[in-house]
Amino acid sequence: MNAGNDPQNPLQRLSALLTRLPGVGEKSALRLALALARSDGEYVRALAEAMVAVHDELRLCTTCCDLCTGEICERCRDPRRDKGLLCVVAQPQDRMAIERTGAYQGLYHVLHGVLDPLAGIGPAELKIDALLQRLHGDAVRELIVATSPNIEGDATALYLSKLLQPLGVRVTRIASGVAVGGELEYADLNTLHRALAERRSL
Amino acid sequence: MNAGNDPQNPLQRLSALLTRLPGVGEKSALRLALALARSDGEYVRALAEAMVAVHDELRLCTTCCDLCTGEICERCRDPRRDKGLLCVVAQPQDRMAIERTGAYQGLYHVLHGVLDPLAGIGPAELKIDALLQRLHGDAVRELIVATSPNIEGDATALYLSKLLQPLGVRVTRIASGVAVGGELEYADLNTLHRALAERRSL
Repeated sequence: MNAGNDPQNPLQRLSALLTRLPGVGEKSALRLALALARSDGEYVRALAEAMVAVHDELRLCTTCCDLCTGEICERCRDPRRDKGLLCVVAQPQDRMAIERTGAYQGLYHVLHGVLDPLAGIGPAELKIDALLQRLHGDAVRELIVATSPNIEGDATALYLSKLLQPLGVRVTRIASGVAVGGELEYADLNTLHRALAERRSL
Repeated sequence: MNAGNDPQNPLQRLSALLTRLPGVGEKSALRLALALARSDGEYVRALAEAMVAVHDELRLCTTCCDLCTGEICERCRDPRRDKGLLCVVAQPQDRMAIERTGAYQGLYHVLHGVLDPLAGIGPAELKIDALLQRLHGDAVRELIVATSPNIEGDATALYLSKLLQPLGVRVTRIASGVAVGGELEYADLNTLHRALAERRSL
């Protein structure tokens, strides 16, 4: 009697798949599914194709591990960028947030996560090997750790500073302008500006 | 430099399409797009297909205008349901919410909206003609207007009660158990139970 209990129902099938996305609960999934049922066909098909394209066309930059469409991302290819400065972030959206400030002209490295032993995420699960390779090869003079200022992000920053000590690279941490316990991705531009300007040695 | 400004970027293309869905802002769209970029291909393809299926397979029941996969929905086909009782709701999710209470055994009619002159939604934009046809044909003794208790929902209820007065059908309104100004879809089961039990004549 109820769409929510009938696995054969297309609405129920779509809702169940949507709830696997981050931040989508059962009510939101149903609301989205109903909106799609009543959207025009051209839009629904374009959305479906764009989803598959995002999955199929995006890969990780072989240098910085950011998402990009080619072999090497446009930032790593840009000759005007300062190759001596490396900003380490947890996720691609953190890189985008810092890029939006317009205050940073160095390169990036995306870890694709932070250390989180309780969730089973150790150094091997992050792009730390790729980072070490860059530091051996490139002439990096400073590495800015811009993980979120929460327990996992701080632990990751501390781990990196200890790991890189033998290499003689200066390791800094973004300043506490970003609210403690918050998410870097949602910080406003001024907060991110200040966090970059007031970075401190670890 | 920024994925947000590059229309060729698959992430940006998908994010732009996602923001056209209800309740999805720019940040959520980017978060969803990034999650899809990193989900496994089988899941992304299943989700894309389920979206197209929801659009292509669902149509409106020729009797009650609810979304269903066939010609006539399972509720309108069910011989155990009380055909003398009709519950009018704004959207399919409202029908689902009432159905979940288990306290209602009559039939439904889905208007697909409420009267909202400022948004250009008048009686012609709603499934009111289909409702009138049912009242002329079927032996309906009572019509329960279960639109949300806000300005538009109340106006729609009043409009229907005046429209149907000549037909001699008893028109009732769900009780004020549902919080005024709120959305029927999100009411808890007890509130909906009470709202059905305490319905009053208009």
